[in-house]
Amino acid sequence: MLHGKVLIAQGGGPTAVINQSLVGAVQEARRWKADGVYGAMHGVSGIINEKFVDLAQESDVNLEQVATSPCSALGSTRDKPDLAYCQEIFRVLKTHDIKTFFYIGGNDSSDTLRILVDEGQKVNYGLRCIHIPKTIDNDLMISDHTPGFPSAALFVARAFAGINMDNRALPGVYVGVVMGRHAGFLTAASALARQFDDDGPHLIYLPERNFDLDNFVNDVKSAYHKYGRCIIAVSEGIHNQRGVPISNTISNDVERDAHGNVQLSGTGALADLLTDAIKSSTGIKRVRGDTFGYLQRSFLGCVSKIDQLEAREVGIKAVQFAANAGRDGAITIHRVGDYAVDYRLTELRDVAGKTKLMGDSFIAESGADVTPAFIQYCRPLVGDELPAVARLQAPAVQIEEPLCL
Amino acid sequence: MLHGKVLIAQGGGPTAVINQSLVGAVQEARRWKADGVYGAMHGVSGIINEKFVDLAQESDVNLEQVATSPCSALGSTRDKPDLAYCQEIFRVLKTHDIKTFFYIGGNDSSDTLRILVDEGQKVNYGLRCIHIPKTIDNDLMISDHTPGFPSAALFVARAFAGINMDNRALPGVYVGVVMGRHAGFLTAASALARQFDDDGPHLIYLPERNFDLDNFVNDVKSAYHKYGRCIIAVSEGIHNQRGVPISNTISNDVERDAHGNVQLSGTGALADLLTDAIKSSTGIKRVRGDTFGYLQRSFLGCVSKIDQLEAREVGIKAVQFAANAGRDGAITIHRVGDYAVDYRLTELRDVAGKTKLMGDSFIAESGADVTPAFIQYCRPLVGDELPAVARLQAPAVQIEEPLCL
Repeated sequence: MLHGKVLIAQGGGPTAVINQSLVGAVQEARRWKADGVYGAMHGVSGIINEKFVDLAQESDVNLEQVATSPCSALGSTRDKPDLAYCQEIFRVLKTHDIKTFFYIGGNDSSDTLRILVDEGQKVNYGLRCIHIPKTIDNDLMISDHTPGFPSAALFVARAFAGINMDNRALPGVYVGVVMGRHAGFLTAASALARQFDDDGPHLIYLPERNFDLDNFVNDVKSAYHKYGRCIIAVSEGIHNQRGVPISNTISNDVERDAHGNVQLSGTGALADLLTDAIKSSTGIKRVRGDTFGYLQRSFLGCVSKIDQLEAREVGIKAVQFAANAGRDGAITIHRVGDYAVDYRLTELRDVAGKTKLMGDSFIAESGADVTPAFIQYCRPLVGDELPAVARLQAPAVQIEEPLCL
Repeated sequence: MLHGKVLIAQGGGPTAVINQSLVGAVQEARRWKADGVYGAMHGVSGIINEKFVDLAQESDVNLEQVATSPCSALGSTRDKPDLAYCQEIFRVLKTHDIKTFFYIGGNDSSDTLRILVDEGQKVNYGLRCIHIPKTIDNDLMISDHTPGFPSAALFVARAFAGINMDNRALPGVYVGVVMGRHAGFLTAASALARQFDDDGPHLIYLPERNFDLDNFVNDVKSAYHKYGRCIIAVSEGIHNQRGVPISNTISNDVERDAHGNVQLSGTGALADLLTDAIKSSTGIKRVRGDTFGYLQRSFLGCVSKIDQLEAREVGIKAVQFAANAGRDGAITIHRVGDYAVDYRLTELRDVAGKTKLMGDSFIAESGADVTPAFIQYCRPLVGDELPAVARLQAPAVQIEEPLCL
């Protein structure tokens, strides 16, 4: 059973389905007759500031509407508690008789839970902590994949599918910069956009491999020669062999968040650097670059149904494990078929603060593409929401005596 | 009736529904038993190079699949014929007994048709030319709106609706740069994203008004003070009072297309300039900028149903007018109800090469927003494909003796 009040919060970057997990946890906590169901506004910062909402007073009708709305309905935070912050959290939780805490977030949020659990044991406050996974980066350990990723992958695939058609109509070179600091999963999802053999993206650059600007330009030249056009998917986190992000080589004036991460999104600098390099080195005239930016995690109405279901399920399972398992942990998703999944409670330390990268089996030997194994892994996640496109099949009119030779 | 063979081509930037018009014209031309239905690859350049496909050999099954695929299936071009180019076109058309030409495109494509008609009269080649409208910019004269715009507007509205939720979860300043060189319709469509009173975009900058960086920064400060966050929609075509695009003030190294237009999309420079200005002048830390780029015209699976239907209809109507009206012209859309439209054949000279801008009644007096009249104009175009979102309604937990003051 659930002891004391239940508290739910959302941390880190929003996703298209993060509220499914919130609603799943709220409804399940009410079903288990928790003494109260609070929501903390803006993650852990809402706890220390005692900014709570009484989720027991939400109607199921409104909760269902919230579930299908993108981005953290409780608000989010980038705060990462230290010892003093944690002690403040415990003081507040104790005052409000909160005994179970569900934190929906990525590896930073799971690390926050790990710190809370460690500190909680020191101060002897019996708090049950369960991590509910979400991240478009898909970089949580143990889990086959993470809620939020499939919908973001669907966005990226749809974007490149459209770009591919656009680029066929008006050929040139196109660079699309995709989110992903350390893990290339979301950039790799661009490969799902391919349908015909000559479809783009023709090149895919991931942070799991070192990036070399000269090799890049040569790759582009070759692809352009072969296809008469070239579409390139690039992760924002690409870096040189010394590990320095290419975007940092542009400017020393970098911005860091509370986790020490350099700000990569919200600027078009990397795309501009790459398109400039192509223009100046190849003589190709039509070279365009887009940075997908925040659209890929929050665009309204681009949601994988499987993602919706799984995000709901991890919220529900978190409450069930909290009531039954007698220990803290992180909800993890395990693939047990093609396609079927199972949900388990994993030790927090196995997930907290760690980053899963794309395995070698998912990256082509060239270092500039994915493997069929990755496609097989990723395709079921985006489901039927990635529509097929068609080309004209009409035969060319045979010109027997061309007017212009 | 239709004389000789029919030729169809697509020009200018692709849209999400441009193939609906193509398929509408092909099927209707076959219904009218045209002697042949050719497609020119890559617009007028396909004519002078005799790159034709025999559209009479397309199956209706595949045509329906093509219709729902984004971006010019025949390929497009930025070529703008001069006299010599036109003479070459007539030589080819005559050789292939092509007597009716449908060109699907924007104001540049309609101007190409005007030139063709003028030159055709000089060389006494009886060519029937009908312009089929498309442009995401919505800047064609006479028409109430243009096929392609509603779907692009839907993309922009969905993008800002998501960004609005994202920005509520993690507050800060967000600048989204939207396509539109001279006309602000697409940027203005961002206003459709608003649902709650405090929803963004809080500021909207259009090329119909002069842009002043100092005023801009002050507007942002005020909005940020009022809402604790600020979302801004900016047209890529904003310019200073001397008419110089703000993006040009960044670099003199500008790229021009065949129509003399400066390249605005495919670079993140304008968003970066604006976010830098905000950061350096306001002290606000979290300032992000995205350039929506090519996604807004080609993103797969973001289509207004009304746009689909109308794009199909203008293709069909073009053939009917060609068969019955006995004159050249441009298909125009006229609003005859709320919401209902009528299709007419307008003189080419009234559309060709002209640009419709947003009227004063659509622009707020502040110069940084749209009016309710614009919302009323634009809302029916995107239809039911813009979903509503929901917020939590749970009341705040009343804290009687706050722990932290």
